[in-house]
Amino acid sequence: MSGANRMIPPKELLHFLKKENDFVIVAHISPDGDALGSSIALSMALESLGKKTIVYDKDPVPEFYKFLPGSERFTASLSSLKLQFSNLILLDCNDAERAEIGKLQFTSSAVIDHHETARDFGDIKWIDPKSPATGLMIFYLIKELGVTVTKEIAVNLYAAIATDTGNFRYSNTTPGVLRVSAELVETGANPSYIAENLYETWTDSRFRLFLKVLNTLEIYNDIAITHVTLEMFRETGAAIADTETFSGFPRKLRSIKTSALFREIENNYYKISLRSKGRDVNVAKIAEIFGGGGHSNAAGYNIRSDFKAAKEALLKAFRERT
Amino acid sequence: MSGANRMIPPKELLHFLKKENDFVIVAHISPDGDALGSSIALSMALESLGKKTIVYDKDPVPEFYKFLPGSERFTASLSSLKLQFSNLILLDCNDAERAEIGKLQFTSSAVIDHHETARDFGDIKWIDPKSPATGLMIFYLIKELGVTVTKEIAVNLYAAIATDTGNFRYSNTTPGVLRVSAELVETGANPSYIAENLYETWTDSRFRLFLKVLNTLEIYNDIAITHVTLEMFRETGAAIADTETFSGFPRKLRSIKTSALFREIENNYYKISLRSKGRDVNVAKIAEIFGGGGHSNAAGYNIRSDFKAAKEALLKAFRERT
Repeated sequence: MSGANRMIPPKELLHFLKKENDFVIVAHISPDGDALGSSIALSMALESLGKKTIVYDKDPVPEFYKFLPGSERFTASLSSLKLQFSNLILLDCNDAERAEIGKLQFTSSAVIDHHETARDFGDIKWIDPKSPATGLMIFYLIKELGVTVTKEIAVNLYAAIATDTGNFRYSNTTPGVLRVSAELVETGANPSYIAENLYETWTDSRFRLFLKVLNTLEIYNDIAITHVTLEMFRETGAAIADTETFSGFPRKLRSIKTSALFREIENNYYKISLRSKGRDVNVAKIAEIFGGGGHSNAAGYNIRSDFKAAKEALLKAFRERT
Repeated sequence: MSGANRMIPPKELLHFLKKENDFVIVAHISPDGDALGSSIALSMALESLGKKTIVYDKDPVPEFYKFLPGSERFTASLSSLKLQFSNLILLDCNDAERAEIGKLQFTSSAVIDHHETARDFGDIKWIDPKSPATGLMIFYLIKELGVTVTKEIAVNLYAAIATDTGNFRYSNTTPGVLRVSAELVETGANPSYIAENLYETWTDSRFRLFLKVLNTLEIYNDIAITHVTLEMFRETGAAIADTETFSGFPRKLRSIKTSALFREIENNYYKISLRSKGRDVNVAKIAEIFGGGGHSNAAGYNIRSDFKAAKEALLKAFRERT
């Protein structure tokens, strides 16, 4: 068992999950392994208790996450959501806007999340920024509900935890993370199979885009800036989901404390990912300046601007905050 | 504790370590994190029992491993080894030739290793190819000797285990690996500090060489081949130790099962690193054909040839073996 680091879900959340029978589980847009794995695992656990669940994300499951057992549970169509599903569970984000649920009607809502930037949403909230991953909270929640962790649940939770700890490389890799992961491996999660699917299933397009991105590297003191233009997406045939891990790469440079990746998603509209290393730079605080959010080592925001102005605004924010 | 996966050192090894008072601990040439961390940890443990140790490696400790506490214990000079050190402990390899100990005299020898390719060397052998890392064996050995794992020992053993499990991404990431790692974190090993030192301290030269190497990528069915010429080393100012992780990178491509990196270390003399993913290709078997060895997913050999002929010989070996 995972000992001292054990997390205890709030009683009202347990009560809500036990009492109600139908749930819409909703994760944030551009879902990552933690959002996807947590949602699927919770859906499986609730269904094993005889509940009905619908799992919704506005964006489709990225190709390289389709190995997650149960990933076909995700629907991206709100029209399929019937009115009797009146209980919302928002996962891995705490802001309904970030999930773009639009006109979805619900009477009760619960939020399970570990992000630092907390918004005022949800009747029941379990928001623990100290938790390394939402997947870890779901692990303890499932145990507390008395549900047996199956192999399929284990794979989803391991993938969730691996994603949000940078495969045990980030500062949130606690003894609890490692012990729970050991237990998930014993239950059937295969670390190398999961790592291969998460990190080693690049397409040729993705690889070629990666090379192009590395070639854009600019360094400003301890900040690395790389960017992707619409042109590069066109030339390589790669998509925005292909760039997910690119932002972290320049941190390999000893001299770099923060890496920023600018991705042009529309003409003069950029999606920026910030990654820092160590404890010196809290990039969530920087992202908040631009209306975004995240964790201290991984955050993001969007900006309507050309690349040069967007870059200068970011560098200015760094000069003023640090 | 680490439960069912616990490893039990042979009684004669424990007896040897308890009875004798002076040891030369020797690791293989081109030492990696497992060789270095295991050697330092064992040296610290034996000295805490009042023994004398000398830690020897023919090659100097690579710059990015100098964060390991106690890395200054390594000597690369045989002349400093006095005759009274008559007990040899060979670590993370099982062939004295691979450690290039030359004329070093000893009366007794013990081998602690986890490599598949076993040679006939050593009075006492503890060779367990099932062990994910020599560091894990040293962990159990230290416990069995009744030595308390200090923070410094924990950092060395965590780095050793992280190195040889690809930071918990390879198929040798067992529940035992994760539980022992949890214990080492509790004892003071810091996963993100260690990962940053192992993976995120690239110099500009190393980064530039990496870009050049990626640009040499050739693909033959499911085999990726990259290479480094003497010219590239000169142009970037990077050294051979800088290329250590390059060989694994092309495995990111979904279509690739094996990645081979050819490094020209002298004119027409190549050092080849093989990395495979999954269980399909055992690269140790391929390396053995050329007089090398290693693990099923990571192996290597040297060849005196030009690049073209060396590449063709390797591709031929693959065609014939698989």
